[in-house]
Amino acid sequence: MQATRRKFLTSSRNSILAIALITVLAETTTSMAQTDPLPSWSDTAPKAAIISFVDRVTRQGSPDFVPSPDRIAVFDNDGTLWVEHPMYTQLAFALDRVKTLAPQHPDWQEKQPFKAVLDGDLKALAASGEKGLLELIMVTHAGMTTADFQKVVTDWLSTARDPRFKRPYTELVYQPMVELLTYLRANGFKTFIVSGGGVEFMRPWAEQVYGVPPEQVVGSSIKTEFRMEDDTPTLYRLPKVNFIDDKAGKPVGINEAIGRRPIAAFGNSDGDLEMLQWTTMAGAPARLGMLVHHTDAEREYAYDRNTDFGRLDKALDAAAITGWTVIDMKADWKQVFKQ
Amino acid sequence: MQATRRKFLTSSRNSILAIALITVLAETTTSMAQTDPLPSWSDTAPKAAIISFVDRVTRQGSPDFVPSPDRIAVFDNDGTLWVEHPMYTQLAFALDRVKTLAPQHPDWQEKQPFKAVLDGDLKALAASGEKGLLELIMVTHAGMTTADFQKVVTDWLSTARDPRFKRPYTELVYQPMVELLTYLRANGFKTFIVSGGGVEFMRPWAEQVYGVPPEQVVGSSIKTEFRMEDDTPTLYRLPKVNFIDDKAGKPVGINEAIGRRPIAAFGNSDGDLEMLQWTTMAGAPARLGMLVHHTDAEREYAYDRNTDFGRLDKALDAAAITGWTVIDMKADWKQVFKQ
Repeated sequence: MQATRRKFLTSSRNSILAIALITVLAETTTSMAQTDPLPSWSDTAPKAAIISFVDRVTRQGSPDFVPSPDRIAVFDNDGTLWVEHPMYTQLAFALDRVKTLAPQHPDWQEKQPFKAVLDGDLKALAASGEKGLLELIMVTHAGMTTADFQKVVTDWLSTARDPRFKRPYTELVYQPMVELLTYLRANGFKTFIVSGGGVEFMRPWAEQVYGVPPEQVVGSSIKTEFRMEDDTPTLYRLPKVNFIDDKAGKPVGINEAIGRRPIAAFGNSDGDLEMLQWTTMAGAPARLGMLVHHTDAEREYAYDRNTDFGRLDKALDAAAITGWTVIDMKADWKQVFKQ
Repeated sequence: MQATRRKFLTSSRNSILAIALITVLAETTTSMAQTDPLPSWSDTAPKAAIISFVDRVTRQGSPDFVPSPDRIAVFDNDGTLWVEHPMYTQLAFALDRVKTLAPQHPDWQEKQPFKAVLDGDLKALAASGEKGLLELIMVTHAGMTTADFQKVVTDWLSTARDPRFKRPYTELVYQPMVELLTYLRANGFKTFIVSGGGVEFMRPWAEQVYGVPPEQVVGSSIKTEFRMEDDTPTLYRLPKVNFIDDKAGKPVGINEAIGRRPIAAFGNSDGDLEMLQWTTMAGAPARLGMLVHHTDAEREYAYDRNTDFGRLDKALDAAAITGWTVIDMKADWKQVFKQ
């Protein structure tokens, strides 16, 4: 009895020891992985700013400590998390969709802005102005249920390729920003996308690509209507603008969808100016505002003040005054895309 | 050396043993607390339906298993989580607010619907109809920043008392429903409020009272506008309706704010009909729809088909056809309010 009991105790102690060792090993592995949470970032000022900010808001006893539920970080999408040139991916989707739908609309052959799309005449398309673009968006994004639209988007993304990089658009996301999203979440942040792009265009893939679930994606939207059809409830997409989540709309969208003021905001253009103002000019010390500056024509694109879209002009001036960190893509990112 | 090392190992083994024991004890305590996760519910059909549903969607290998991120549960607020009679709490807030603001508006003494409020003449108020009510809401809810409105709501709730129960409104929440929210979250659900009430009226207290953070509160809203005032960014509340999160608006609000289809929905009135349809009529087996039926005039209120608001009529008929569980407050709840 005594021997059995001793053996049991020893073996039980050994098991506990083994478990303890495994725990220690697991923790060591985690801490090793955490020695450089941002391996695609150069050891320059932006990386240091991120790490210092995260330390200040997460360290117990730090004067800038922020409790985890209030660690809200918001990210623009086009040009901040993935490529936006030579045209927004969602516009490429709309143009392809016009071509797909054209056989059912013979009148489009002679009707603008559809004719311009079918002729591949981007100049004529631009001449159709905002009104023309809106018409394109409505024809390609409305007139179906939300479930059908989700399928159309997913199907398109699985076959469409970026013309320059010959890769699926969802692979043209910035590796340093994906690491940043992961790093913030590992430090108790809740990460949200706040984009001028369509919310239902981003939700089908944002979780897989960015680790951001649908309920944390905020974007522009068209109106939807609840319909009971043959005892089946559906949400039908109407050709009416509901909300434009851009410029001064971004703080509005953040307040509507999140209801808390973020403590960190990441953008790349004047469309993000008000979001960064709302996030950082809050009277409290620890706020982080960052702008991705496209300076790398070789690996990606170079543009700022003089571009048709994704313009970084007023926000670049504001950065110098307000103390936002500007990320120089060429100098600050070791790697641009996932490999 | 050898002795020291052995002593270290022994002491370290003892510490590990102690930690292991503490862990086991902690787990036992948790599991004991979990033996009845819904102590305020009677052992009747609704409690059994909840527990069976949670088991089916959370048990690995169950044909109805749902991965944790898709375990979305939506709750109406007024009449489902807290008392809505004899008037919505938000209306009581608006009426009190009119009285507070009246000295700054001498014309209200003779102008409807304000005169009715100041005279305490609810009949005249009702006669002012939807237009009158909307005017009241706008005057009391708009014309200030979101931060100021949050303070007004919080201050009011800290002093206002329900006329019958003489308790703060935030204490008149249903204890069985609070237990249900906690139970679902402990089982990997994300719980959302989806209410016809104002989203900014609920957010200041929903986290403390229900454990539901601001970003998981969906409700009706008025338009807000971003303004830079003396280098201070603010969101200003405008006297314009933005979204009514009621009836067919509820599935629309769910889609906009959550972007996933819920698997469980809880309501109490015809205003929740479409939300329950959208949640449960999805072609999949494991969906839970429940309606709180106010049957307890003694402990709370009794009303259903014949009431001015919070009417449960069409949804009660639909429950019988669609298989939703109706909670008989009197029979199914051991306790109504927190004690």
